[in-house]
Amino acid sequence: MQYPNKIKKDFKEQKISHANRGMKLESLLNLTNSYYREINKAIIYKKPTPIKIVSTLMSSKGIKINEAYFEAPSTLDYNGLYKGKYIDFDAKETRETTRFPLQNIHEHQLLHMKKILEHGGITFLIISMNNLIYYLDGNDIINFIEDNKTRKSIPYSYIEEKGYVINLKINPRIDYLDIVDKIYFKE
Amino acid sequence: MQYPNKIKKDFKEQKISHANRGMKLESLLNLTNSYYREINKAIIYKKPTPIKIVSTLMSSKGIKINEAYFEAPSTLDYNGLYKGKYIDFDAKETRETTRFPLQNIHEHQLLHMKKILEHGGITFLIISMNNLIYYLDGNDIINFIEDNKTRKSIPYSYIEEKGYVINLKINPRIDYLDIVDKIYFKE
Repeated sequence: MQYPNKIKKDFKEQKISHANRGMKLESLLNLTNSYYREINKAIIYKKPTPIKIVSTLMSSKGIKINEAYFEAPSTLDYNGLYKGKYIDFDAKETRETTRFPLQNIHEHQLLHMKKILEHGGITFLIISMNNLIYYLDGNDIINFIEDNKTRKSIPYSYIEEKGYVINLKINPRIDYLDIVDKIYFKE
Repeated sequence: MQYPNKIKKDFKEQKISHANRGMKLESLLNLTNSYYREINKAIIYKKPTPIKIVSTLMSSKGIKINEAYFEAPSTLDYNGLYKGKYIDFDAKETRETTRFPLQNIHEHQLLHMKKILEHGGITFLIISMNNLIYYLDGNDIINFIEDNKTRKSIPYSYIEEKGYVINLKINPRIDYLDIVDKIYFKE
């Protein structure tokens, strides 16, 4: 998604807020996916943000949308193809330091992850927390939730135990496929 | 399965125009994919239409987008997961009766199909033409284009020869996975 200059400016003027850190993780993942496509390693894209269009009109620049609203996605933001496997994931951030609140993941997104696993795909979350970037595999997320049905968050200790820290690199910025290789394609 | 009133109404009120027929094919495929998800056969969604947002403002209904334009997609419209395989396809219509003009497919979409095949995914077009709905496999599309580099269209005879006619059903409306089974999962 491309943000108009006005929004970019607004973002600059904001203090380091939750939204800003989210934006940065998204940008890093978009650069990562572009790099993967460029070196022909994987075909993974961010899905466009779902929007409900209320009205349009003809303008000199073509069809102009003059009333629309953002909609909640029912899937995860990123999907694609790697080594013949279906990949489907999302990026989440929290300022919490001891737990990852499950309200960060919509219930239909959790259901979606469960179905991806059931149908033989690979799914995970990239979690930015405590100034580190973690890969947390879908199997570990679903197992935790099924074993702890009443809990409203995943403890940080679980993420430290089951997750993989991804160190930032120049290219690819966030090399999450390195972790996918370790888990799913180890020799 | 219950369909929203809006879709029912759209179906009734549409005249048969090119744009409408495009819309109708899209609606039928959306119903098909909903049905596949409901019976837990496959997890396939239409991607949201990519939109370039120029300006937004706060309104009583939340963030309102008050200037935006449609963008050309660089991938295909539908993707997902079936029997452990990555599926990626698009729906195209033409009023032409003797040939399918290749200008219906953007060049980066063709490149995308080629890459999907290269990385072990399944890709195809659903083509509505001469009052029939065809499945044309990505391998046949890419082969044709590589063997006929100067041609600007695929002859209808090629689609008749290589494609599979999909007869409309009540559910799923356009059972394209039946063809995927025939080609990729035959016993």
